[in-house]
Parts: sequence; structure tokens; C-alpha cells
Amino acid sequence: MSFQDEQLAKEKVFRDPIHGQIIVDNQILLDLINTPEFQRLRRIKQLGTSSLTFHGAEHSRFGHCLGVYEITRRMCNRFQRNYPTRQPGDGLWDDRERPVALCAALLHDLGHGPYSHTFEHIFHTDHEAITREIITNSSTNVNRILSRVSPTFPEEVASVIDHTYHNPQVVQMISSQVDADRMDYLQRDSYYTGTNYGKFDLDRVLLMMRPIKSGIAFDISGMHAVEDYIISRLQMYLQIYFHPVSRSMEVILDHLLKRAKYIYQHPSEFEPEFTPYMLMPFFNNRFTLDDYLALDDGVLTTYFNHWTHSRDEILNDLARRFLNRRPLKSALYDEKSKPLLPKLRKLIQTAGFNSDYYTAVNDSFKLPYDTYNPQNSNPQTQIELIQPNGNLIELSQVSTLVASVSGKEAGDQRFFFPKEMLNEHKDIEIFEPIYEEFQSYIQNNHIINPKEHK
Amino acid sequence: MSFQDEQLAKEKVFRDPIHGQIIVDNQILLDLINTPEFQRLRRIKQLGTSSLTFHGAEHSRFGHCLGVYEITRRMCNRFQRNYPTRQPGDGLWDDRERPVALCAALLHDLGHGPYSHTFEHIFHTDHEAITREIITNSSTNVNRILSRVSPTFPEEVASVIDHTYHNPQVVQMISSQVDADRMDYLQRDSYYTGTNYGKFDLDRVLLMMRPIKSGIAFDISGMHAVEDYIISRLQMYLQIYFHPVSRSMEVILDHLLKRAKYIYQHPSEFEPEFTPYMLMPFFNNRFTLDDYLALDDGVLTTYFNHWTHSRDEILNDLARRFLNRRPLKSALYDEKSKPLLPKLRKLIQTAGFNSDYYTAVNDSFKLPYDTYNPQNSNPQTQIELIQPNGNLIELSQVSTLVASVSGKEAGDQRFFFPKEMLNEHKDIEIFEPIYEEFQSYIQNNHIINPKEHK
Amino acid sequence: MSFQDEQLAKEKVFRDPIHGQIIVDNQILLDLINTPEFQRLRRIKQLGTSSLTFHGAEHSRFGHCLGVYEITRRMCNRFQRNYPTRQPGDGLWDDRERPVALCAALLHDLGHGPYSHTFEHIFHTDHEAITREIITNSSTNVNRILSRVSPTFPEEVASVIDHTYHNPQVVQMISSQVDADRMDYLQRDSYYTGTNYGKFDLDRVLLMMRPIKSGIAFDISGMHAVEDYIISRLQMYLQIYFHPVSRSMEVILDHLLKRAKYIYQHPSEFEPEFTPYMLMPFFNNRFTLDDYLALDDGVLTTYFNHWTHSRDEILNDLARRFLNRRPLKSALYDEKSKPLLPKLRKLIQTAGFNSDYYTAVNDSFKLPYDTYNPQNSNPQTQIELIQPNGNLIELSQVSTLVASVSGKEAGDQRFFFPKEMLNEHKDIEIFEPIYEEFQSYIQNNHIINPKEHK
Amino acid sequence: MSFQDEQLAKEKVFRDPIHGQIIVDNQILLDLINTPEFQRLRRIKQLGTSSLTFHGAEHSRFGHCLGVYEITRRMCNRFQRNYPTRQPGDGLWDDRERPVALCAALLHDLGHGPYSHTFEHIFHTDHEAITREIITNSSTNVNRILSRVSPTFPEEVASVIDHTYHNPQVVQMISSQVDADRMDYLQRDSYYTGTNYGKFDLDRVLLMMRPIKSGIAFDISGMHAVEDYIISRLQMYLQIYFHPVSRSMEVILDHLLKRAKYIYQHPSEFEPEFTPYMLMPFFNNRFTLDDYLALDDGVLTTYFNHWTHSRDEILNDLARRFLNRRPLKSALYDEKSKPLLPKLRKLIQTAGFNSDYYTAVNDSFKLPYDTYNPQNSNPQTQIELIQPNGNLIELSQVSTLVASVSGKEAGDQRFFFPKEMLNEHKDIEIFEPIYEEFQSYIQNNHIINPKEHK
Repeated sequence: MSFQDEQLAKEKVFRDPIHGQIIVDNQILLDLINTPEFQRLRRIKQLGTSSLTFHGAEHSRFGHCLGVYEITRRMCNRFQRNYPTRQPGDGLWDDRERPVALCAALLHDLGHGPYSHTFEHIFHTDHEAITREIITNSSTNVNRILSRVSPTFPEEVASVIDHTYHNPQVVQMISSQVDADRMDYLQRDSYYTGTNYGKFDLDRVLLMMRPIKSGIAFDISGMHAVEDYIISRLQMYLQIYFHPVSRSMEVILDHLLKRAKYIYQHPSEFEPEFTPYMLMPFFNNRFTLDDYLALDDGVLTTYFNHWTHSRDEILNDLARRFLNRRPLKSALYDEKSKPLLPKLRKLIQTAGFNSDYYTAVNDSFKLPYDTYNPQNSNPQTQIELIQPNGNLIELSQVSTLVASVSGKEAGDQRFFFPKEMLNEHKDIEIFEPIYEEFQSYIQNNHIINPKEHK
Repeated sequence: MSFQDEQLAKEKVFRDPIHGQIIVDNQILLDLINTPEFQRLRRIKQLGTSSLTFHGAEHSRFGHCLGVYEITRRMCNRFQRNYPTRQPGDGLWDDRERPVALCAALLHDLGHGPYSHTFEHIFHTDHEAITREIITNSSTNVNRILSRVSPTFPEEVASVIDHTYHNPQVVQMISSQVDADRMDYLQRDSYYTGTNYGKFDLDRVLLMMRPIKSGIAFDISGMHAVEDYIISRLQMYLQIYFHPVSRSMEVILDHLLKRAKYIYQHPSEFEPEFTPYMLMPFFNNRFTLDDYLALDDGVLTTYFNHWTHSRDEILNDLARRFLNRRPLKSALYDEKSKPLLPKLRKLIQTAGFNSDYYTAVNDSFKLPYDTYNPQNSNPQTQIELIQPNGNLIELSQVSTLVASVSGKEAGDQRFFFPKEMLNEHKDIEIFEPIYEEFQSYIQNNHIINPKEHK
Repeated sequence: MSFQDEQLAKEKVFRDPIHGQIIVDNQILLDLINTPEFQRLRRIKQLGTSSLTFHGAEHSRFGHCLGVYEITRRMCNRFQRNYPTRQPGDGLWDDRERPVALCAALLHDLGHGPYSHTFEHIFHTDHEAITREIITNSSTNVNRILSRVSPTFPEEVASVIDHTYHNPQVVQMISSQVDADRMDYLQRDSYYTGTNYGKFDLDRVLLMMRPIKSGIAFDISGMHAVEDYIISRLQMYLQIYFHPVSRSMEVILDHLLKRAKYIYQHPSEFEPEFTPYMLMPFFNNRFTLDDYLALDDGVLTTYFNHWTHSRDEILNDLARRFLNRRPLKSALYDEKSKPLLPKLRKLIQTAGFNSDYYTAVNDSFKLPYDTYNPQNSNPQTQIELIQPNGNLIELSQVSTLVASVSGKEAGDQRFFFPKEMLNEHKDIEIFEPIYEEFQSYIQNNHIINPKEHK
Repeated sequence: MSFQDEQLAKEKVFRDPIHGQIIVDNQILLDLINTPEFQRLRRIKQLGTSSLTFHGAEHSRFGHCLGVYEITRRMCNRFQRNYPTRQPGDGLWDDRERPVALCAALLHDLGHGPYSHTFEHIFHTDHEAITREIITNSSTNVNRILSRVSPTFPEEVASVIDHTYHNPQVVQMISSQVDADRMDYLQRDSYYTGTNYGKFDLDRVLLMMRPIKSGIAFDISGMHAVEDYIISRLQMYLQIYFHPVSRSMEVILDHLLKRAKYIYQHPSEFEPEFTPYMLMPFFNNRFTLDDYLALDDGVLTTYFNHWTHSRDEILNDLARRFLNRRPLKSALYDEKSKPLLPKLRKLIQTAGFNSDYYTAVNDSFKLPYDTYNPQNSNPQTQIELIQPNGNLIELSQVSTLVASVSGKEAGDQRFFFPKEMLNEHKDIEIFEPIYEEFQSYIQNNHIINPKEHK
């Protein structure tokens, strides 16, 4: 039985706030959506702690995955309408690639867990490896359904996500500087946060896409739409994804999980009545795929809730700070002021905070765009424009705006510390030399050397 | 210290996808938002199981409460600008009512728990009583903050939510046929589901509102805007809130909790390794306010997750159906076909399903609008329009559209049953007389008597 | 050469605020858009005097015609995807009808002139007959292009617009109770006025449409979406199209053209320096198609501008009132108060206004929905829903909301008079018994008999 | 009588698609809106020929002027709420400046005529001088109304528009790099064209504005919102305002008016039956304010319509090209290829086109942002950010993105020529060496030297 044989007589439609309608017209796709592995994505927030800064953005990874599928479907439709292949190797679109493209789009984020970034940091899990595992391990529902297409189909789908699939057009649809993944999350996160930063002209970008031998390029008349997309992405990073309050809540989460891991790895600290059964495999560094798939945001917050009754003061306090949204404060630092951080940590420790758990540094940087450089650790596909005579030209060659941001990382470095150090609340006794000294190191949100700024 | 004394020097702004900006300019309000009791609303979905039908609608009660506050704030501003009181009893707006109006708006939903409707059905809790408790019980953070305004202030705020406050303008801002609560949730749920049904002209409705002695009325030139609101609300009920799939998932949830309660009230059925500590006080009918405030959506789904490993087949299966979104099917019935339901339940039981847990009836009806009738069990404030000469006229007297829906309940009655009874999947042996008989009772989504439809 | 032969290798896209992209993929369609006859629609406002009430709504008929085309194109795509014909007479969609459907959609409003309604009233032109003429008269560019498809093609296109085309599916796409024309203008006028009243769920309505033998029906699961469309349409009529200020400006326009016609038909009144050359054929009741096609909104306002220098006081004053937007006032009347109008006209005449030019009555009524009734002068196609077993059921049989508005006209009757009669400006001497008497007839925006309301 | 005395008891609201509601609460403002001078703006398109490229953008200057007023009103409200002056000279906001700010905002574009840019080019009019004239000349309605506030008030309003008013806060509200004018037109033009490029976060920019002694600055926490505005503006210029098709239609308009001026200044060429009475004062370089105020878009297109019957071939043809939207084509050139233009013009002349009327060069460049430089011919106010300690810092010092575009003009230089030179239509005889030679100079939309690109 092939993919074509499972075509639905009538299209099935999911209403989506971003794309209006998400159209599914194949039983394979519908069955994939209905697996427990995919439904679980409803219980994992797309933006993690960002919803604590932008209260509107509580959406899950489920809608995002449907959205990436829908954008990929539209790409296939456009390519098939305007650039259908005539003979093998002509660099045009072969619509027989549609099934693998659609399935990879739908499933590309399947391995994400709760608060992925932080969870991976503490427990050394890898959501990309787990995505591959869910797709290719014969025990999963997803694998069983994909195998209906052909025995090698799960492996093909996984290879698209791995970037090793033979057809670069399909790979770049899902993963490149302008792919369905990024295009969906920018629009979606923009909609849910209630900001406009991520709203570029999706329809026009899709219209300007063209399949070429080496992957996907853009008609040069779409240059400004692509520029706008690049800048939108940069703005979303600077304004939404790198927001200091979200990062601060992530720091608290990280330290909370670190503390819990420490406690549950040290039996003496252990409080049996709060055993977090579903996390134990991770504390013990021995987890199965099923253990992983049982996790979601609610499991974590449920344990955090338990921990608010812990006798361990740090665990207890950090759990409360996280659940009740009491962020740390932060200040910017740079290479010059970095040597001052140990001094600041010491002051914080003196003020009664364990500085391992109540301070942190966090760098958030994003490369808005880059040309291809095989020397890079993680070389990016560059964006190529097609000129009227068919020749390609790399985007930053013709766009001053993109050239101006190309290859330059944007972002900042922050030092996080307890809000109490700023002593804003007058209820602590008035003369606190520690706080005063601490505050002398901070000016205009930057860490400075007070001796040089007299 | 009065409310005025805690005015912020500079407004604090929350970005909101529905209202653009939510403006808070008083420390009392800011402190209320930062209480654990209020932050907990972030972990309770506004629409419960509806997000399983409309995947975009995963928003929590937190944003809704801020939205109700914001609409109330705008009402106060308009009233103060256009209809300020000149002398007591003139029926115009006295801006000294602003603190109690704003606090009541913000806190009106504080007592909601996870999947409130179902939870209350099974455990006989009452979110309105709990809201009052949180506001007036001196142990809560909310109460402590409200008490800063005056010792009687918490009680005043609670009385607005109870509808017993002396000023009917304030009560009707928060609770009437056209109040800040309904206006926010219609817009918000519309935005998140990605539908237009709930989008009436909020700005115009607010513009047309006027304080009168008996509460709030509308300038007659705003009649069509109010009509549009009434119809939008009706459409939201029919299309979103009463969606059969959401109700089906609610049925599963209800039966799942019922089964768990049964098991945990019968020690012999008890499986100690899955003890749902945080639910035990509810199974035992002895819960404290703290027990209640520890609950959220994630706590429930975490236990459901545990239960997917239960040896109790029903608990296990219902937990999976809920988490993996496998709804029951349904058919419409009416008074004439109702006597057929026992027969259908029997067929379902014969097919191997415990009909106590795998069937249900659910009526969902909404009165789109009604005139005031003191005979009613729950009389509604009717909507009054103000004519140019100042006389009031009740809405349905002048609006044919509203008259046509006034006093008539809209909705339906459904019988829910396992999808398996429709035998759509060919993997069950082909000739199944039970299924065939069952299906002969269903035609065009209605339950019918097959003998009469030969 | 057939329509198919003129398929474009690559789609051409018009960016549209309502539909996002309008996609044209055939040279015939592109050439039609580029004709002078079609480009002229850019100079004719879609909503006539409504832009004087809703300043945002200054859009022309050009965008609307493209929009109707686009919706029809989407209907064809859906029908072809989900309901392609298998054999003649099966009531499914035959995609060979696409060319005639698309051309009729694009051209259906081609014969509209400036401020059509009023212009037709004064000059007895008929935009539908002119549309047919432009399409079928061999002298036009439009006809030449359509004839490339086949010699009979122009006549076929005209017959769709006339409702005489043999395939009722095509006719109903363009003209029925739920057609591409109405669906575009509701959305478009809603967008430009900045209101929400006309925003129904276009995508869902399109999804629910199905070709049947007798035309087009809707899947019953789309009932609420169709209901919402019906109510949206009603609300747009009541709130936007029937707005008293727009109607008042239309009255002024009507009287201004009536006065001009009178003057230019009476040489003695004639002022040669203001000869409105382009209107003379209409004053003389002898106009050609070219004369008609030379008219647009700007031609009229240019002559109005000239007339503000006329020695004829009425022409001069009405031209100023129109250009400077100084509407008449109005009051509602009914059959009971109608006999009072002559008295009111007399008072107005006594106050110095020529009541032929400074008063008017205007009825605006709309039938929101009706079932088919061959007895009616203009019977409407009723809306049919398709039940799961394939049977049809008429909409108002199942929708209480639609039943409640079906067959009942909504709207009002107004008497228009100069604002001066209300004597709001204090600069006229204080005691004016005429004004006082006039005002005694008006209460709560209604005309009343003052003797009965003592 | 002061401005305060004319406060309206109840606010008057204009519904606006961009700002939702535009609120007017003073009789002076309402009367200004109702003047013939202001109402005339309804008949002048905001974007001139751009509506021929973006068909949705047919809006007039009327809505824009209301929008600028509304944004200014919101600025005043925010300033008054958050930064009210305490003592003269403290650099905070003095709300007594509100009347002059609101009137200047409303009236700032009053002197615009039809297709201003082109009209001014041909007839040497100056819309800024005319704005001043309308405000200060005692014969106008606008002046009469403004004089009700005080005898010097008209002059004060004019001085704000001239940038000579004493309070730089008021001047910068209306005219600076981030002013109400630019903020409205970016949002408005974005909405009407149906693009997203101009949609920055207006609410947040307004929130971050602060009055300072030297004018207006922005809280540094709003840096990204200001960045986004700068980039949005740049994108609107590159994608919308500089669109080659709009510029091409402007070239046609320019040449058409040039030809008409030539003809009407040379009696021998004169065709009396087409006398464009309302343009004659401009052809004769002797026009009054009344002559100017009688013009609008419709007057011009009405004469163009007449000219399509002219015996002068160029006038006739250009009028048709404009009305029927038949743009010239264009190619990019630079300093290197500029010397080739005479050769190209010669080829075009040989092909039968008068190159004075059928070719043109057009540079469109925009400086996205610049720091203040008193050496510049037209120095711009730079954007200042306020740091937490109160110190100012210029935007490009902290924003890499803005630094990257600061001081660099963006845009292009184009050579326009008749589409016929590209000989795309096969109906001209096949071998046309002139066309072939011409085309050898164009490659990838650029003018090149064919000898160097062999």
C-alpha cells in the first residue's frame, strides 16, 4: 500500500489561528497526528518560560508541528504548480517527494521534552536523537504508521530531519535559513505573544521560492520579502526569545533541577514522601524511551509543587520562585567587567544566598544571517537569489540591510542575582553595607567598576 | 494608607494579544497579580477540553483575568470622562468606586480549579465559594494585600463578585448580560481558537455604555453593536463551547475521575504505587484551601499518566483516551427518542463496554438573552437602551433580531458512546450483529427508532 | 486557441488586503484586467456615499471584482479536489466550467457607473444591461479578448451574469444567497470600514460548499458558519449600508443631479460657462456606451465643483453640501405618522427651503433570508443543507436563528430635512415659532403627532 | 473663549480601521474637520500612483490627518499621565500645549494637492507654504475657527508645522524621525496595501516616549521597538513607496502634465473644446488660493479623460496610458552605466517615440536614519534614548542594527522606457534590429554595456 492509496476522499481540516486552515488529505498523516507520541506535544509549551514574560504565549508544540506541516504542503503545491520536473536531474520539483517532505515536517519536533533547553542541560538528553528514535524504533506507533508506506520510509523521514536525505530541496524545506520550521514559529510566536515583530510576508516568501539543483533559492524580485524575514527573525530573538525575564526564569528552573538532582543522588538528603517517580530514571542516568515520553510540563510543575513542602530550603525556595514567578534580576557585563563577577558572587554569598544556586551567567547570541563557510562548526546554507538570466547571487551581495547584519552575532551577556540585592523593598533594615556595595557595581543595567566611575 | 496612595509614578504595562496593552497603575493591583494564588491561574486552561478540539486555544485563566480587569478599567475611564457624578444619587459615576471595581474584576475567577466544571461535578467543590474564601480568608496573600486598602475592603470586593454590593453599576460591570467578564472571554476565546464568531465591536459597546441609577444601560444608537454582541455570544456557544468533541472529552474526564474516586474510596481496589497524594483530600471529602490551591491542570494529567499503568482496566483505558485524545462519538436525541437510550446502553454493554463508564448523556443549552423575570430560578438583568429623551426601553422591544432569540434556549442533547460501535475500522470481524443493530438506531446523527424509519 | 492554451507558465499574483493573494494564471484573465473598461472601475467607489460616514471605506469596485474572481477560483479548486464529476449528469463539478465561471466572476460588475444607485434613479440607466453590453458588444476590448476563447464565449459569460446559463452551479457561484459576490463585499467592506460586522468564516463556508444537481448546497456540519454569514450580512445592512448619514448624502446627491438635469433641460436656466460636457448625453437622454464608459466619480465631483459657482442657488448650495459633507438630518416614520409628512414639508418650505430639494423620504429594507417562493416578484434561491445520508434540508428548517429572521424585512423609513430646522446653532434669532413647531413633531428620533403625546 | 471652554460634554468618535476609534472631544477640532478645506482631503489619495500598483491602497489624506491627530492625542495623554510638569523649565509636559499640538497634527497636510509630488514638480507649487497660507489667511474657514482660541493661535499652529514653535516637544510630536505623521502613515499604508512591512509596535513606541528639555526621547528599554520602527520605515520605502511601477506611472503623469502645459502655453496647439478651466491658472502661473483648493484627483483625471480625445498624439496617448494603467518599463543604472543613457534614448527616438516624453530617469533614495549633522542641508533630529540614570545616548551608539543603516541612503536609479522596446508582443514584425540592439543593453534588470558582457 502506497501513500497515494491512503488519499482521503475528502480533505480533513484543522482550524488554525495562524494559517486559517490546515488541510490534511491523507490517512497516514491523520494517523500520525493521532498517535500518543504526537498528542503528547499538546502538553509541552512551545516557548517554555517565555509565557512567564508574555502571558499570551502559552501555546504548545502541537500547533507548531501542524503549522510546519501546512507550510511545507503549500511549498509542495507551489512547486508542483510552477516548477514541475520534466526529466530527472533538471533541478525542478518531483512531486513524489511530497510524502517524505510532509511527514518530516509534521514530525520534526517529536523528541522535544518539557522545557527542553534546560532539561537537556541538566540531564544530557538530546531531543534530536530522540526524534530519530521515535521515528525509527519499531516499538512506537509513529514507526508503525510510517512503515505502512514502505519498510524504508521511517528511515527516509528521519534522514530528512538529520539533513542526510539525498534531495536537498526536501531537506531545505524543513531545515535551512528560510524553512517551514522557522517561518511557522516566527508567525506563531508573534501571534501568541501579541507582538508584530515576527510578522513577515509568508505568502510572498513562499511565492518567491524556487527549487534548484542544490536546494531552494528565491526569485530576486522577492529580495525585500526575504530581507524582511531575516530582520523579523532577528527582532524576535532580541525582543522575545532573549527577554531577560524569561532567561531569568530559565536560570531558576535550571538551578531547581540541579538541586533536585543533587538531592536525589545523595540518599542522605532524600525525602521519601516527595519521590518524583517519573524523574527518577533521569536522576539515575538510566532512562528508556517510555520514561522520556511520559514527561511533560505538568509532570515537572507537579513535582515542583511537592517540593514547595521540602525541608531543603533551597529546593523549597527555588520551587516557589518558579511556580509563583519571582524572577532574578540581571545586569549586562562584557569582557572588561567579567573579572568583577567573583566579587559580586561573594557579596551575594555574604548576604545569605548560596551563590551556586542564586547567581548565574547567561549568554544569548544569535547570528542573524551568514554566508556559507565550511570552516564553521555548524555551517549554514546561505540564501541564494535567482536573477532574471538564471544566475544565482548570494543575498548579502545585493541587500545592504542583510550585509550589515551578516556574520555579526547579536545578543548580550547577563549576570543574574536575587532581586533582594537591590534592596528595593524598604522592609529590610535601612543601613545594609553589603547591599550598598553591591549596588555600586551596577549602573545603567551594566556591571561597572565603581572605582573607575567615581 | 489608601488605594490612591499606592498609585504608581509610572504605569506598568502587560502586552496582551487581545487588548494590546493592559495598564496597571497601582501597587495594590500589581501585588495582587504577583500572589501565588493569582499566578496559579497560569496553570489552569481557560477552556478545559476545548483545546482538544481547537488546538490553538491553550490559553490559561491568567490572561482572561487581566483582560477583565482591563475592560473594567476602560469602563471606569469612559464613565469618569463622560458621566461623572455631580451629587449623590444622581445615577452617574462616582470614581471612588474604581478600586473595588478593579479588584473585583481582577479576582473574580480566582477560585477556579483544573477543568472546573467536571471537577465540581465529581467532587462537589464550588469555585465561587472558593473565590470568596481566597479573598476574605486572612491567611491568603490576596487578603493581606486587599486589607492594605481598609479592613472592610476584602469583604467589599467579595460582595461585588457575590452581586450583593450596594452599587449596581459596579456589580453589573463584572456580572450582567453585557459585562467585562463575558466581553473578554468572547474576544479572547475567538482569538485563540482562530475563529471570528466572538469578535463583536468591543470599543463601540464600551462607548455606548452609560451609568444609570439601577446599573448600566446603553445609548440607543449602540443598539446594533449590542445585538451583534448577543449574536456573537450565541454563536460562540453553539460553535465553540458546545462542540461535541469537547463535550465528549469532558465525558471521558468525568468518568475517569468518577472511576478514580471509586477506586480510592475502596481500599481493596487500591494500588499503592500510584497514590495520587494531591487528590486524596478530595477523594476523602476533606480538603483545605491549601489542598485546593495546590491543584492545577498539570497535577491532574500527571496522575492520569500514572494511571495509564493501572491494573484497573477502566481507569487505565479512560486515562489513555483522555491523554491521547480519543473522543467518544455522539448522536442527537430528543424527548421522543430518549426512551431508546436504555436499549442502546444495553447493546453497548453487550459489546463489552461498561456502560456506566462508556456512555453518557449531555445536554448543552444556552439562553441567548432574556428579559428580567423574577419567577426564574436565576433571573438575569435585562438590557436597557436609553432613548434620546432619557427614557429606557428594553432591548428586545426594539431589536427584532434579539426578540427572535429572546427566551429561547439554544443547544442540543447528545448521547455519547464508544467509536468502536460504529465499526468503522475493518479490523474487527466483519459480521457483527450487535454493531449492525446499534447502527440501525442512528441516522443523520440522530437517534431514531429503526422500526419507524423502514 | 482555447482557454487552456493561454495558461501562464508562472502564476501572476495581486496582493490584496482581504484575500492575501489573488492568483491569476491565465493570459485571458490578465488581459481582461488590463482593459480600459476594467481599469475604469478603479475610479468608481465601491460604497458611494458610505465613505462619507465611514472614512476608511474609500475603496473602488476594482478590488471587489478581483476579490469575487479569487473566491470563485477557490470554489473551483475545492470542487475539483473534492467533488470532481465522474460522468455527465452526476451533479458533481466539471472543471471545464472554470473559464466561464472565472470570467463571469471577474466581469460581473463591469457596467457600474459612479454612484450607481442614484445615477440610475435620475438617468434611468441600468448597470446590468450595460455589463451585458460591454461583454457582448464587439467594439469593446473585453469582448475582443473573450472572443479568443470561442465565438460564443462572450455570450456564455453574459448568460452567467443574467442567470440564464445552463449550469446552475456556475450561476450560483456568482449569484445566489451565498455567492462569491456577497462573500467578497461583506469581508471587503468590513475591512475598509474598520468594523467586524461582516467578518464571517469565509474559509469554512467555502469548505462546506458542495456541488449538487440543482446548484450548490452546504454540508450540514457547516450550518453555523452559514448562519453566521446570514447574520453578518444582516448586520452589515443595518449598520453600514443603511446608515442614515450615508443615505442623507445620497438624498443630497439625488436632488443635486435632479436639479442639474432640470437646469440643463431648460435652456433659460442654462449657464454656458459651466457646461458639463460629459453629462450632456445623459441630460439629453441620448447616450452611447462610450459616453457611459467615460464617467467616473471624479467626473461628477468635478462638475459639482463647477456648480459651487453657479448662480442657481439650489444647485450651488446642494453642490456645496455634497462636497463639504453637510448631511441632512432625518427622523423615523411609519404608516401611522406618514400622514404628518405633508405638514412637515410645509413647515420646511415656510422656513425658506424648497421642499422638493430639501426634503426626502427613503425606505431601506433588506430581506435577510427567504425560502424559495415562485410567487415572489424576485424569487431567491434558498439555502440547502446536505445531511449525512445525502438528503437536502432547507436552512431555516434546522436553524432557529435563521428561521427567526427568514421572510421578515429589516430596515427603516426615514424623512430627511435640513439640519437648520433643529435650530441647534444659537446664531439664528432665538424665538422661531416655525422651528419650535417643527421640533414638536420629533421625539426620540421618530416623527410623532404632538397632540397625542402631550 | 478658550479651547477649554469648547470641550464637548460627550466625546465624538470616528471609527478608523487603523486606530479603532479616533476621539474628538472639543468643538474647535470638530469644526476644523467640517471645513471645506479639510473635507477636500477626502478627494486626494494619500499614495498617488501607488494605488495603481497596490490596488487596495486607495485611501485619501483625510483619514491620515485624523490618524496623526489621534496619535498626537495619545501622546499628550501619556505625557500628562506619566510626566506632568511641576515647574516651568523642568523639561516635563505642560498640558496647556495640547491645543496647539492637536490642531497642528490635524492640519499639517492641509496644503496637499492632487498627486502633490508631480504637480509641484510641473507647476512649482509648494504644499507646505499653502498649508501655512490656509491656516493663517483670514479668508479661510480654518483660520476663522482657529481664531476663536486666540488671535495669535493660527500663527502658533502654523509655527509648529514650520518647526519654529518655541516648545520642541510639540514640534517633534508632529515632525521628527519618530513623529505622529510617520507613525500614522506607515501603519495606514501598510493596512491598505495589505502588507506587513509597516506594522511596528505603535503602542510600545508611544509608551516609551518621554518629554525632555530638548524635545522627545525614548526610554532605553524601548530601543528594540524604535529599531523595529526604523526598519519598518525603510522596508516601506523600498517595497512600497519606491515600487518601480508606481514611479513609472508617476513619470507618465509628469510627462502628461508637462505636455499639457506646453500645449496650453502655446495657443497654436490649443484645442478650445478641451479647455481645462480649473488648470488654466496653473498653466498661466497665476493662481489664487481658491484656484488651488478647487483641485483634487478627480479634476485631473476628468481632464485626462477629455485629453484622450485630443488631436495631439502625445497628450492623447499619455492620457490613455495613465488612465488605463499602462506603465513604462524600467532598468537600473549606476554611475558607470549612466553614459549609455543617451545612446538608449536615441534608439527609442529612432523606434518612433519622442524621447522627451517617453523616457525618464528617476532616483529614489531614502536615508533610513541619521545622526544630527548641522552641516547637512536638511539636518534631522537624531533619536535619543534615556538610560536608567537619566543620561541620553544616541540610538546608533547602542543599536548595531540602526548603526548599520545609519547615514547610508537606500534606493535605486532607474531609466524608464516604453514597454514596446522589449518587443514582448509578437505582433510586431519579427526582425527589428532596433529593438534587438536596445535589448542587448539590458541584463538582469540592469543597464549594461553589451561590449563588455560578451
